Amino acid sequence: MAELPSTSSPQPSPELASIDLAWMDRALELATRAEAVGEVPVGAIIVRHGDVVGSGHNRTVADSDPTAHAEVVAIRDATSRIGDWRLTESTLYVSLEPCAMCAGAIVLARIPRVVFATPDPKAGMAGSLGNLLQDVRLNHRCEVHSGVRADESATMLRAFFKARR
Amino acid sequence: MAELPSTSSPQPSPELASIDLAWMDRALELATRAEAVGEVPVGAIIVRHGDVVGSGHNRTVADSDPTAHAEVVAIRDATSRIGDWRLTESTLYVSLEPCAMCAGAIVLARIPRVVFATPDPKAGMAGSLGNLLQDVRLNHRCEVHSGVRADESATMLRAFFKARR
Repeated sequence: MAELPSTSSPQPSPELASIDLAWMDRALELATRAEAVGEVPVGAIIVRHGDVVGSGHNRTVADSDPTAHAEVVAIRDATSRIGDWRLTESTLYVSLEPCAMCAGAIVLARIPRVVFATPDPKAGMAGSLGNLLQDVRLNHRCEVHSGVRADESATMLRAFFKARR
Repeated sequence: MAELPSTSSPQPSPELASIDLAWMDRALELATRAEAVGEVPVGAIIVRHGDVVGSGHNRTVADSDPTAHAEVVAIRDATSRIGDWRLTESTLYVSLEPCAMCAGAIVLARIPRVVFATPDPKAGMAGSLGNLLQDVRLNHRCEVHSGVRADESATMLRAFFKARR
């Protein structure tokens, strides 16, 4: 839980960490659904005041849409349900570190807290190649935690890409 | 036309530059339409083999969607029309420098060439704050040109924000 620095709050209490595990399991369920339909297995949910307000998994192949990453699908789901483009007071759970597009979308949506499972050393922009979620030059910064269900997510992703080689 | 380095081709010939001006005028027309409905005046078109295959303007307020920047709207329009998430052999024209989300989406869509009008010193990620379109660590890089109709676009943006202060 402490791989990346938190800029806006202390590390979560054990109780919060347990909640984070439960929500990440929901994101992993969505990743499993993506895999079942031939999409890269990544899932995301957005939680606000204890309720899931948005969710999604990768749909780039099904939708012929390169922007249909799990995070963007979940953000669009949440903002259309809420009727507001700002997702304040929410946490986004995603099973893979956000790429540049997704990190940029998270900043634009003003999401205050992001929890991701496994890092993406090739494209991750929440600590791996860079950190757009905590860039002091942008007009919004997130609290970021990683490592929640990291092994489960990494195992699923490795198996997916191995099967397609 | 030469503010940013080109990584994949020489600078455009005068004939190409004239074509670029004409296409950017189309992007600016879309920016004007955005302004007319109260959205930040930014427009984008995607051109492939001389045809417009996708277009859009900012719709973040109308759609309650923080991801509905002109570039993302145009990319989704083009990929849904073409039925392929890859926009190879195309040029994206946009009236404002892409932000992190849009630059990331352009890279994911494999767009080979980007022409933008005016830089965005606060959020631009195609040369201002960083350059995600030409990041050697990512798996795609673009040819980038800027300054086409820069004054027209900057004037429109300044007037929009001044009126809302």
